[in-house]
Amino acid sequence: MRIVIAPDSFKHSLPARTVCDAIARGIENLPGEWDIIKIPVADGGEGTVRALVDATGGAIYHQQVLDPLKREITAEFGILGDGKTAVIEMAAASGIELLKDEERNPWLTTSYGTGQLIRAALDKGCSRIIAGIGGSATNDAGLGMAMALGARFLSREGTLGEQGGGMLDQVSGIDLSELDPRIKNTEFIVACDVSNPLCGPKGASYVYGPQKGADPEMVRRLDSNLEVFAARLEAELGADIKDVPGAGAAGGLGAGLLAFCGAQLQAGFEIVARETHLDDALRNCDLVITGEGKLDAQTRYGKTPMGVVKHAKAFGLPVIAIGGTLGEGYQELYEIGFDAIFSILDKPMSLQEALITAEEMLVRTAGSVMRTWMAAR
Amino acid sequence: MRIVIAPDSFKHSLPARTVCDAIARGIENLPGEWDIIKIPVADGGEGTVRALVDATGGAIYHQQVLDPLKREITAEFGILGDGKTAVIEMAAASGIELLKDEERNPWLTTSYGTGQLIRAALDKGCSRIIAGIGGSATNDAGLGMAMALGARFLSREGTLGEQGGGMLDQVSGIDLSELDPRIKNTEFIVACDVSNPLCGPKGASYVYGPQKGADPEMVRRLDSNLEVFAARLEAELGADIKDVPGAGAAGGLGAGLLAFCGAQLQAGFEIVARETHLDDALRNCDLVITGEGKLDAQTRYGKTPMGVVKHAKAFGLPVIAIGGTLGEGYQELYEIGFDAIFSILDKPMSLQEALITAEEMLVRTAGSVMRTWMAAR
Repeated sequence: MRIVIAPDSFKHSLPARTVCDAIARGIENLPGEWDIIKIPVADGGEGTVRALVDATGGAIYHQQVLDPLKREITAEFGILGDGKTAVIEMAAASGIELLKDEERNPWLTTSYGTGQLIRAALDKGCSRIIAGIGGSATNDAGLGMAMALGARFLSREGTLGEQGGGMLDQVSGIDLSELDPRIKNTEFIVACDVSNPLCGPKGASYVYGPQKGADPEMVRRLDSNLEVFAARLEAELGADIKDVPGAGAAGGLGAGLLAFCGAQLQAGFEIVARETHLDDALRNCDLVITGEGKLDAQTRYGKTPMGVVKHAKAFGLPVIAIGGTLGEGYQELYEIGFDAIFSILDKPMSLQEALITAEEMLVRTAGSVMRTWMAAR
Repeated sequence: MRIVIAPDSFKHSLPARTVCDAIARGIENLPGEWDIIKIPVADGGEGTVRALVDATGGAIYHQQVLDPLKREITAEFGILGDGKTAVIEMAAASGIELLKDEERNPWLTTSYGTGQLIRAALDKGCSRIIAGIGGSATNDAGLGMAMALGARFLSREGTLGEQGGGMLDQVSGIDLSELDPRIKNTEFIVACDVSNPLCGPKGASYVYGPQKGADPEMVRRLDSNLEVFAARLEAELGADIKDVPGAGAAGGLGAGLLAFCGAQLQAGFEIVARETHLDDALRNCDLVITGEGKLDAQTRYGKTPMGVVKHAKAFGLPVIAIGGTLGEGYQELYEIGFDAIFSILDKPMSLQEALITAEEMLVRTAGSVMRTWMAAR
């Protein structure tokens, strides 16, 4: 019996690889011969670097970068097993979770550190870069990122020194003569599951600005700045990216990656599925087990287990999902292909206790599920 | 597909019948034809009255009785669907949980109320009485029960007026002339899963006295009183019950039921299995689902789900157990026939919350288990 185990991480508790191992252990503890394929997966958001590195036998690297307020921090990125594909998460360098609540200010925050991660990947010889761009603290349309890669932005006073979404309307010219030359020979693939344009009521500033710390007046001005900057990108670089779906992702970093790096935006899970060769594994398999820390009605909108179900169902395979918390409306998932859904919880306990004991509970739950499966056959 | 659902109650939360209904609902929510037989079961302890009444289509009655300290309370008992078999729990009238901690005193507590319950059953025309005797507050060898049924105990001052384990050594004679005459035409079946003799280091006083409130000196004197009383029973009634296994159950109520009522002691679950015709249901069935509020390593020692497994395995049937809490060592249950074991918990939560939401979680868990079962076929 061949089983593909393809779960996301359990947030704040277990990386996807550990989830795979725990589920596999629960099954392998049972008598019988088991052919188990472990594929840690992710949706392009948090955990994507670890999942892709673990799934492909790659490695994690650490890099000194500047955080959204230009303080030195260490961020990790990955290189996949092929040795030439890097995977970065913008959140590792320029993420909102790097800031205290009172520090959130998209007028000032910069994506510079994300550019540094790209540069580090290029320095390692990578010619393909997969970027997850969720969880950003910025609204700078990739201005900082481009600076880190060698772009020079001109203002009335000469070279633009400051960064941040508040500076975008100061840009009067763009000089790419010092842009890292490796960029044009590098394939950029951006994991993007939103379709927001750069500007306007559905754009980066209006939709995501408030959660990054912008008040209504700042939102209005940030949006106006993005308009100015987009016009500049079009005039100087011929890059008409303003209305590309996803240009408004990550505070306009989507637009920046399109304009400066020639990126393609793709659905996060699909990138992960391709890189992990998920379909190859599913081709001759009898059962798929997926999971995530929380499973609920929202799971159907682009999260990892939903992606796993779509791929598994294309092969007509049964899918069992295991989660920590089964939240509001999780039963709706039965309507869209999940065959059975279980929580790992085995007694009343606090969230804290659940996080601590998640791994062993996962082993045991996977065992119970598989025991049921075997008893039924 | 025929499924037998035979769970115990979830203590402090759901009676066994409600557990049956919830599990059945979880299954019947799924597409398909279901042939479900619901048999609420119990082990002779708490919940036995309800389970037997519900399983046989009987009725619950309420009776004014005296509690262990001779205060008026209302206790329930049941009459099974056959209309002639009563089922009582001594704990309902003479149980330790009827007392506050500081009231626990086996020198004084009496089994009188249990005798009143027996009398009430006889008054309803019952000719068969099943008695669960767990959870007693008493150490009176059934002295109070016998008084309630008309027995008169003589002391040096005439008729013994006081009750309680402390009075047993005052008994100098036993007069059964006023004993309820219906007793000798009534079959008494006592659910008893312990094998303690009446007296000595493994007897009622030494083993169970301390938890009923006796200090070491009282334990010693209670044990001595039981010796005196047993000698009296043998001398006066020819009842040599002192060393019958189970005579020491329920503070010697086991002995009293043997001596005064001609009771047979039987394993609690076996009584329940017989009265509910469990084996008949199992005979043409495909799957058995059992459960209990807590499943752990102790479950193997005589608790309900263990009994269900023994019976199911005699027919070669798979058994899935569903519990609230899966406690220490529950995996050991896999070694003795359980096929899979699940908790109903679906997220981190307090015990309080779990008790409140147990029923709906049970519905959903049963659904997930059955979905897995069906996906595997």
